[in-house]
Amino acid sequence: MSGPIHFTVHDRCTESAARVGTVDTPHGSFATPAFMPVGTRATIKGLMPEQVADTGSEIILNNAYHLMLRPGDESVRDRGGVHEFMRWDGPILTDSGGYQAWSMADINAMTDDGVAFKSIVDGQKIMLSPERAIEVQNNLGPDIIMALDDCPPSMDGPSAHVEQLRPELAAALRKRAGCDQRGRVAEAVERTARWLDRCVSAHARADEQGLFGIVQGGAVPELRARSVEQITQHDLPGYAIGGVAVGESPEQIAQTVSMTAGLLPEDRPRYLMGVGYERDLVAAIRSGVDMFDCVLPTRNGRNAGGFTRTGRLQLRNAQFKNDDGPIEANCDCVACRGGFSRAYLRHLFHAGEMLGAVLLSLHNLRHFQRLMLDIRAAIRDDAWSAFARAWPVAGLHLAGS
Amino acid sequence: MSGPIHFTVHDRCTESAARVGTVDTPHGSFATPAFMPVGTRATIKGLMPEQVADTGSEIILNNAYHLMLRPGDESVRDRGGVHEFMRWDGPILTDSGGYQAWSMADINAMTDDGVAFKSIVDGQKIMLSPERAIEVQNNLGPDIIMALDDCPPSMDGPSAHVEQLRPELAAALRKRAGCDQRGRVAEAVERTARWLDRCVSAHARADEQGLFGIVQGGAVPELRARSVEQITQHDLPGYAIGGVAVGESPEQIAQTVSMTAGLLPEDRPRYLMGVGYERDLVAAIRSGVDMFDCVLPTRNGRNAGGFTRTGRLQLRNAQFKNDDGPIEANCDCVACRGGFSRAYLRHLFHAGEMLGAVLLSLHNLRHFQRLMLDIRAAIRDDAWSAFARAWPVAGLHLAGS
Repeated sequence: MSGPIHFTVHDRCTESAARVGTVDTPHGSFATPAFMPVGTRATIKGLMPEQVADTGSEIILNNAYHLMLRPGDESVRDRGGVHEFMRWDGPILTDSGGYQAWSMADINAMTDDGVAFKSIVDGQKIMLSPERAIEVQNNLGPDIIMALDDCPPSMDGPSAHVEQLRPELAAALRKRAGCDQRGRVAEAVERTARWLDRCVSAHARADEQGLFGIVQGGAVPELRARSVEQITQHDLPGYAIGGVAVGESPEQIAQTVSMTAGLLPEDRPRYLMGVGYERDLVAAIRSGVDMFDCVLPTRNGRNAGGFTRTGRLQLRNAQFKNDDGPIEANCDCVACRGGFSRAYLRHLFHAGEMLGAVLLSLHNLRHFQRLMLDIRAAIRDDAWSAFARAWPVAGLHLAGS
Repeated sequence: MSGPIHFTVHDRCTESAARVGTVDTPHGSFATPAFMPVGTRATIKGLMPEQVADTGSEIILNNAYHLMLRPGDESVRDRGGVHEFMRWDGPILTDSGGYQAWSMADINAMTDDGVAFKSIVDGQKIMLSPERAIEVQNNLGPDIIMALDDCPPSMDGPSAHVEQLRPELAAALRKRAGCDQRGRVAEAVERTARWLDRCVSAHARADEQGLFGIVQGGAVPELRARSVEQITQHDLPGYAIGGVAVGESPEQIAQTVSMTAGLLPEDRPRYLMGVGYERDLVAAIRSGVDMFDCVLPTRNGRNAGGFTRTGRLQLRNAQFKNDDGPIEANCDCVACRGGFSRAYLRHLFHAGEMLGAVLLSLHNLRHFQRLMLDIRAAIRDDAWSAFARAWPVAGLHLAGS
């Protein structure tokens, strides 16, 4: 295909579906598997773009939903687009806003027209149709834009995993528990396909922005297969797996991702939306997924939660009061390399000082980017045993490792 | 004198008492006139030490009061001292904590023993005596430490100027309005002198840390003169002018500073504590003051207040919604140089995003450091007319300019 987004696979794993590649965009390339930090409101909270780039992040995500409401997508367009606005000159992806409209707002109606909701900024009634979702993203101007999808929650109520991963979702999930899951998911699959047709037709900047379609289908294999078949009717530069981590256990997530990824075209990047912890990412990469976004490194970082290869730390805890060591030994992030101690970070969090969030966000982002670096090496070199030993949190239990 | 702090005057102004110099400390040198950013709790809020240094700041201030309460001065000592703790390897000055104990806490008693107050962290009763103030600063380990002084407020109630400069003080000032000012200030002068004797005796690290004495005396010339005479009985590496900007107008501040600075030894740095706006600094420098600290650039920066050479901006205002220009044209700070627009900063402040505070704090600190750079050049070159034209906010009305 022609178009602004090109994917090249460089290496394939011999023992899994994992691959290493490059995605070229109008604002440069990024290596895959790729982890995208989340810059909801056109800023990775508290960090200068240069600091984000220094963590090894090559592409970031912005939320169309938030920017549409404030400062407004037309305002961002008039400021030169989101790259110019936030001074990030590398690749940017925006989500369509469907997930936020559903999870964050009072929904008035979810119909074939789109999602009608009240703005969290000023209470205004807003209709997010497929056409409007594309117009918003055409105005914002990122390199990769996402189709509007109908992303229904799990009707089983939230798993413990999802309570951690997406606490804002848990209450909504509990409300909906017990509804007709299969019927609602089937409806979402059909609607997502109809909406993709409309998104493709509405896309006014196809020579500058690549549109990714999104597969739905919940945890139901037949529905996932049907959704893949429908979505891949359109020859798009990439395909996303949506509707994952909306209530399920890690095992359910891994199963759904594995079967869905296997059905998607080999020569297009596969993007697993909104996931997750290290073990989720590693399992998905071994199933052939290439792109990820998640708020965990930055959101946990703001709440004194530090990631390490052996597990998570809560830096407010008393045990760190006299700990002069770095967040993680042998870490090359600016916080660890710069000599900022656990004791200092604990002090900053207890004193309510912003710099704690800054330092720990930088560490956590670097943690996720090092995971990507190391997994790319593991794929290239078929060195999974060494990888599994170096990353206990990845939870890989391989024969012989 | 021998000791860890040395002051060298390089150039003197021919038309005012201003001078350019260098202060050498155990952690390097800083040029004077010097502006010290305030890092209350061992962090300049939201900024990496490297970013602070990049604004041209060579010495910073920490508050002994806050660090004594949390994480505790002994804890900082055990972490290797405040330089190691916060990873700032340049010169550091700490204040004694007297001003904070007085302005921020419920005072139970201010007696010759010291200041008894309740901790703002946990309500614990604390006695800050001259000996304890020095012990705290010996533990923290900065290059320059300050004597404990008795700093009474103006009894006239707060001026509009001080309402802006130190809003936290205004309520306290209003409560005390109408008390016997002259008697209270005279008492403070005598007590400050007695306390300095005790501070000098208590100083256990005189070979590593320089102790500055503090002149009191309110707006009463005779009392200032008496205080200078008492304080300079001790041969100290520097002298501070305290008790300024505790209620007075800019004119009163300027008069007090001018007469007091003129009485202090020529060959020691003079430090005006807690002041202030650009015009206050410029007037003081022309009276022979060498060092300043103030929270204005960082506190205003966190509240969307930007400093420019022609006046202050409130970046939340609607007028900046579509303003693609930098905070200030021709500014070389990372925010302006990096292309972050007023419209983007407005967006960040309206969205409650930390990066707004970070960018504007960096701009404002650079603004104050450029003021210092330019005023040093004006002193060296006797170029005050050009300086006055380049810095309208300095409020200099010179013959011929």
